Amino acid sequence: MVVSNRGPLTFRRTAEGWRAGRGSGGLVTALAELGRLAPVTWVSAALDADDQAAGRFLSEGRAAAKAARGPHAELREIHSLVEHQLPGQDIRLRLTDVPPEAYAAHYGIVSNPFLWFMQHEMYRLPYEPIVDDVLVAAWRDGYRVVNELLGRAAVEGLRSRRPVVLLQDYHLYLAAATVRALRPEALLLHFNHIPWPSDSTWQLLPQGLRRAILEGLLANDIVGLQTDRYAQNFLASVASFVRDAQVDFAGRRIRWRNRNIFVRAYPISLDPDALVRFARGEAVAGRRAALKARLERAGGPRLIVRVDRLEPSKNVLRGFLAFEALLARRPELRQAVRFLAIQSTSREALPEYQEYATAVREVVARVNRLDDPESAPIWLLDGSDYDLAIAALQLADVVLVNPLVDGMNLVAKEAVLVGAPVLVLSETAGAAEQLARDALMVSAADVAGTSRALESGLLMPHDERHARLRRLRASVRDEDIAWWLARQLRDLVAVAEGARPPSRHLRDTVRRHEPGLEDSSEATPS
Amino acid sequence: MVVSNRGPLTFRRTAEGWRAGRGSGGLVTALAELGRLAPVTWVSAALDADDQAAGRFLSEGRAAAKAARGPHAELREIHSLVEHQLPGQDIRLRLTDVPPEAYAAHYGIVSNPFLWFMQHEMYRLPYEPIVDDVLVAAWRDGYRVVNELLGRAAVEGLRSRRPVVLLQDYHLYLAAATVRALRPEALLLHFNHIPWPSDSTWQLLPQGLRRAILEGLLANDIVGLQTDRYAQNFLASVASFVRDAQVDFAGRRIRWRNRNIFVRAYPISLDPDALVRFARGEAVAGRRAALKARLERAGGPRLIVRVDRLEPSKNVLRGFLAFEALLARRPELRQAVRFLAIQSTSREALPEYQEYATAVREVVARVNRLDDPESAPIWLLDGSDYDLAIAALQLADVVLVNPLVDGMNLVAKEAVLVGAPVLVLSETAGAAEQLARDALMVSAADVAGTSRALESGLLMPHDERHARLRRLRASVRDEDIAWWLARQLRDLVAVAEGARPPSRHLRDTVRRHEPGLEDSSEATPS
Repeated sequence: MVVSNRGPLTFRRTAEGWRAGRGSGGLVTALAELGRLAPVTWVSAALDADDQAAGRFLSEGRAAAKAARGPHAELREIHSLVEHQLPGQDIRLRLTDVPPEAYAAHYGIVSNPFLWFMQHEMYRLPYEPIVDDVLVAAWRDGYRVVNELLGRAAVEGLRSRRPVVLLQDYHLYLAAATVRALRPEALLLHFNHIPWPSDSTWQLLPQGLRRAILEGLLANDIVGLQTDRYAQNFLASVASFVRDAQVDFAGRRIRWRNRNIFVRAYPISLDPDALVRFARGEAVAGRRAALKARLERAGGPRLIVRVDRLEPSKNVLRGFLAFEALLARRPELRQAVRFLAIQSTSREALPEYQEYATAVREVVARVNRLDDPESAPIWLLDGSDYDLAIAALQLADVVLVNPLVDGMNLVAKEAVLVGAPVLVLSETAGAAEQLARDALMVSAADVAGTSRALESGLLMPHDERHARLRRLRASVRDEDIAWWLARQLRDLVAVAEGARPPSRHLRDTVRRHEPGLEDSSEATPS
Repeated sequence: MVVSNRGPLTFRRTAEGWRAGRGSGGLVTALAELGRLAPVTWVSAALDADDQAAGRFLSEGRAAAKAARGPHAELREIHSLVEHQLPGQDIRLRLTDVPPEAYAAHYGIVSNPFLWFMQHEMYRLPYEPIVDDVLVAAWRDGYRVVNELLGRAAVEGLRSRRPVVLLQDYHLYLAAATVRALRPEALLLHFNHIPWPSDSTWQLLPQGLRRAILEGLLANDIVGLQTDRYAQNFLASVASFVRDAQVDFAGRRIRWRNRNIFVRAYPISLDPDALVRFARGEAVAGRRAALKARLERAGGPRLIVRVDRLEPSKNVLRGFLAFEALLARRPELRQAVRFLAIQSTSREALPEYQEYATAVREVVARVNRLDDPESAPIWLLDGSDYDLAIAALQLADVVLVNPLVDGMNLVAKEAVLVGAPVLVLSETAGAAEQLARDALMVSAADVAGTSRALESGLLMPHDERHARLRRLRASVRDEDIAWWLARQLRDLVAVAEGARPPSRHLRDTVRRHEPGLEDSSEATPS
């Protein structure tokens, strides 16, 4: 059983019949193959009236759909859409009705702006967040309500004696408590896809709120996070804010109200074979040819690539500032290198995002001066074009992934599988714990160091680059999406047997490479 | 021996002879009485040419000054200024020459904007800090240089076999290493007056920089911080970023390169008797009478008071928003209560501060509407008037101290000594660990909860209020400035004897009062 806010498919009734759209987020990608491995029920919220109608058809089951005739054509249609979108899977979708006002408060006030911003440390703390009566009401009448409804829907679908329930992400911090209350013997694992900040961030929130979140999560048997660091932060916040919990930091275990809760890191990943297949496809080939032609017109420059949404946590601004510093130090690179940023816009309605996009555009304009599009050092291209993004990663000499904070950054893993770049990665990227040894590591605020790392990446000798790449690829292939899921299920089996989940620590390799500050970057007279 | 960036006195040569100004910061107040207890040498930087000249006179010593005649009149003058400003003290000031460019980089680029902002978590992380070549050069040619010069100056003044050196604050993270290298047997304690953030903040900085800071501090025998929480954060940052250190969290001890370094909390305090004496003086009485008269003209309202610099970390904005919410909920309080904010401006040249001040003024204008000055609910008065601040604390029914982050907040301690208010205190105030039990605790972002706490403070029955006050006063009187200093010296004596410093933990009372979120604040239809 999987419980998430959004399911793998959303449904739309059109004049030509039913249509289904597949979610594009990492969560759906990660879990959508689960139904190949085991029978799965996936509980999620019905997002609108069409989803609700589809949900009612889906609740009738496949057998009914197969038997359906005539007036029940829609029932057949919905079920065949699911089979078409999620082929070969033993999957049962349960789209759960939630009151629209509750969902709006849950998603539009609590989860998406408030929790997401807080956990990505994107608030300007002197001004935000404001925990006011509106937020408190949205918590009570929205977040709590939706969590209880999805928790109850999950319980209705539970068949086996010790059902396994995988709860997903920050929309559902309280759902496990509902499941636990009704089915105490269930095996519950909550996996959080976004960062878990340090307790000094949580400390700004009301005690009642942070305790509700933490105690909600402690209804699980295992709390899974993307990295060791987030796991450590989670343990620290329980130690700080849940009075009656005992925290064993070394064992990553919490004792609370006569139960054990284990905290583990399960870094999310991708399906390497599927990705490589996709990268070899015609659509990507077309993009690659076009991009190559453009590079040839520009005189065949080396290529730095980044692929991300244009949002403040991704640290695009300092990436361009680092490139600007590189061109100031090595003016000959102005012709010999292009920085290709494949960017999709994000939350454009939010003033913070608009302001950030403006600041980024100003730096781009300053670097590009009045050069014509081919000779301008920075190329901005449309990030909604996934084919193009993969093609760019294939052609990259250096890929820059330097977020201030980010759950995982799958693009770092994609880059080494489809291309052969040097990876410049910030420590605060979720992927850093796995890839630090063979990437060039920078810290996110270090523009001088990032600038040197881009230069080192461009200059890296072929042999060293390929030795690093081999190890990076091996690591990404080993620790793929199946490994991500298998470790969670293995750990739940251990819990079921009364043992400790074996996945205690990832390797922490972030600290290995430590150049002195003044070794790596020198002052230039400006 | 005390080493700090600024000394207790600054000197100015005027047409009428030499003048000395006494620093107003908490550091000077805290340490200026040290010379009554023991012979002290105080090393600091000479801030300008006058300071340098005075420094040369001071270096000649008191005996020479006493013998000075005729052309050496200035020598006498300087020494008698010191005796006048720091009466009854066995103190020797060593004002150390530092190159002006180095000092400018040290103070104006590294310490004051960069480290101060970073440690108060006041940066807008998507935009700042930018660790560029300018900052790296200022670190190397400014911060490092000034630290070495002050460290060397300290060593020159060391007489005893195992001299005790107390290093102060974030300007001097590297000075202990210089002292240690030259006098390995010295007993070194660094006390940091500002917060120590969690390692996720430090992680944004270059490895070389954060390691230099941490390893510089590990040259001490004891690292002292304001609170248990900062001590814990310090231990965690050493564990994360200093590869070859072993951290014993429970024992608050670090093992590094064959030495032990202890981490302790020494919450800074004030001199209760001196404060009470001052509060009974005529100057304060005059302000109190004027303020009382104004309150009477306003119909004798109840009084909420806050006293702080107008800066983003103080959270003035949310304080006023909480008051606005209170007036919206209880309109009758509009006439019956005044919120008196005694505010001094701060760093007005910085755009961040200007923007914050504007945001605060907008809320004040909205709350006050077009009311005349007496009937307006919020009164803003000049915070550079310390007499007035004390008078206001004496008359306060409720005192609000709700910073987002702050080293200590001595105003919370002053308030309960000179007045009889209910104290509303945020958890993130440094004073929270000592005063949480008897203050009304809020979290800094919780406008709804702060609003309720202000209301509870105004409504608190006399007996409860005085029971809380008695305990608060006893705690502040017990843990005064002499206690602050005595614990440090006692701990250093223990180190000298090869024992563990006894001051291991403060009580952590912040977690005691935990109302549910929805208990403490309800949604109001708006």
